[in-house]
Amino acid sequence: MFIHQTQIRVRYAETDQMGYVYYGNYASYYEVARTEALRVLGFPYVELEAAGVMLPVREMHIRYLQAARYDDLLSLEVKVAQMPSAKIDFEYRCYNQDGVLLNTGSTTLVFVDQKTGKVMRCPTDIAKAFAAYFG
Amino acid sequence: MFIHQTQIRVRYAETDQMGYVYYGNYASYYEVARTEALRVLGFPYVELEAAGVMLPVREMHIRYLQAARYDDLLSLEVKVAQMPSAKIDFEYRCYNQDGVLLNTGSTTLVFVDQKTGKVMRCPTDIAKAFAAYFG
Amino acid sequence: MFIHQTQIRVRYAETDQMGYVYYGNYASYYEVARTEALRVLGFPYVELEAAGVMLPVREMHIRYLQAARYDDLLSLEVKVAQMPSAKIDFEYRCYNQDGVLLNTGSTTLVFVDQKTGKVMRCPTDIAKAFAAYFG
Amino acid sequence: MFIHQTQIRVRYAETDQMGYVYYGNYASYYEVARTEALRVLGFPYVELEAAGVMLPVREMHIRYLQAARYDDLLSLEVKVAQMPSAKIDFEYRCYNQDGVLLNTGSTTLVFVDQKTGKVMRCPTDIAKAFAAYFG
Repeated sequence: MFIHQTQIRVRYAETDQMGYVYYGNYASYYEVARTEALRVLGFPYVELEAAGVMLPVREMHIRYLQAARYDDLLSLEVKVAQMPSAKIDFEYRCYNQDGVLLNTGSTTLVFVDQKTGKVMRCPTDIAKAFAAYFG
Repeated sequence: MFIHQTQIRVRYAETDQMGYVYYGNYASYYEVARTEALRVLGFPYVELEAAGVMLPVREMHIRYLQAARYDDLLSLEVKVAQMPSAKIDFEYRCYNQDGVLLNTGSTTLVFVDQKTGKVMRCPTDIAKAFAAYFG
Repeated sequence: MFIHQTQIRVRYAETDQMGYVYYGNYASYYEVARTEALRVLGFPYVELEAAGVMLPVREMHIRYLQAARYDDLLSLEVKVAQMPSAKIDFEYRCYNQDGVLLNTGSTTLVFVDQKTGKVMRCPTDIAKAFAAYFG
Repeated sequence: MFIHQTQIRVRYAETDQMGYVYYGNYASYYEVARTEALRVLGFPYVELEAAGVMLPVREMHIRYLQAARYDDLLSLEVKVAQMPSAKIDFEYRCYNQDGVLLNTGSTTLVFVDQKTGKVMRCPTDIAKAFAAYFG
């Protein structure tokens, strides 16, 4: 199991007139969370794409419990609970600065070969890096 | 069963460097789709809020099949398959101008009384309007 | 002089907690306005890019007079007052459904050859189409 | 003169299909920059609003020199060159991690009393905090 935490400060642009973070913006927060997780693991997403590997999202699910507010300092916890294969599942838990759980979610991404546009297996070096967490 | 279709033209701002619509932007498209559906039904969301009824999203699920591209003219089909109670479920199907199904999704929203902040039953007049579709 | 008008319905996602359209979102509205203007002129921007011509923005200026609100049906008036050369200037006026002028703005875009990355002259067929308006 | 620097990591959601940060997203970056500047000065914008003072933007100008790319770590330099009165001018310079100047901009904001909706003078404590930089 691989877990990583990232902090994100809510921007004014991300609120809506209800006074909360617009529900669609968590997709972007989740993306930041998994990007920073991959960076820590040694595989910045920007380098993956440069190497011809894309990771489009195939599925997303979000359960909204409490709303985030402007200027909240959110903690995004991202977890990979299963060894990646051709796909990789991320699970998210979003907390505010008071430790309140605001929402939970999950995304399924697939490894795609940029040249062929086809789904591919998780690149070997990434698989190795993850393997260390799945003794 | 209540079904409504809305067209949305993909904006440049909504694409990402993969050349597709960013996966998080469909939440906003879905919101436009259900807003237009409520308008057709006689209940513009703007008037609901003015009357003290809010409809925050409690859950969202999206399955991405194909990507939308810049300038695509999307058809967003929104369906309410069950009579609303304290909550209302919307199901979405997003097609491009060639009739290709790009993604499917669902959202669960709850009626909230703006004054008390508490969940409430679907307002009577809205329930009546929907009832006509659920003979 | 070439003038075109486009209507845009304000989305919930585009509001902020002040209850107005977030000031940064007009850039996207302006882009929709000039895109639709180019389409009417016979040059959908999507085809321009496919033909290897890009139109990045070099400068933007916006003056905010009144705020747009959720669900407003905005009229975006876009004007090209000078024949395009290597650059093209668009001027914008944004009105709400009551005819109130909400903001005015301008953008300068340059024609760029996608292959070389260098600024180029306005393609001949586009120049011809505009010339009809600048007798 | 008051100067502050903030770092912002470019998100995938903020790129467009040209492969660069969408030109409209800098408005949001600038907002983060001035928000962090005000926080350092002792006046988190979230507290200003809670105290009934709003700071809507009246004017924005951006000059785009070079494009920011996905995952760039941008440095946003924000400067207040004149003592705030009823309005406050911010000037911005956005650099990438290689020190390349990507864009420059400015915004004019006005202090507005939330109760009356009218323009007001800069609150005394904020004026005092700024005064220290304008000996």
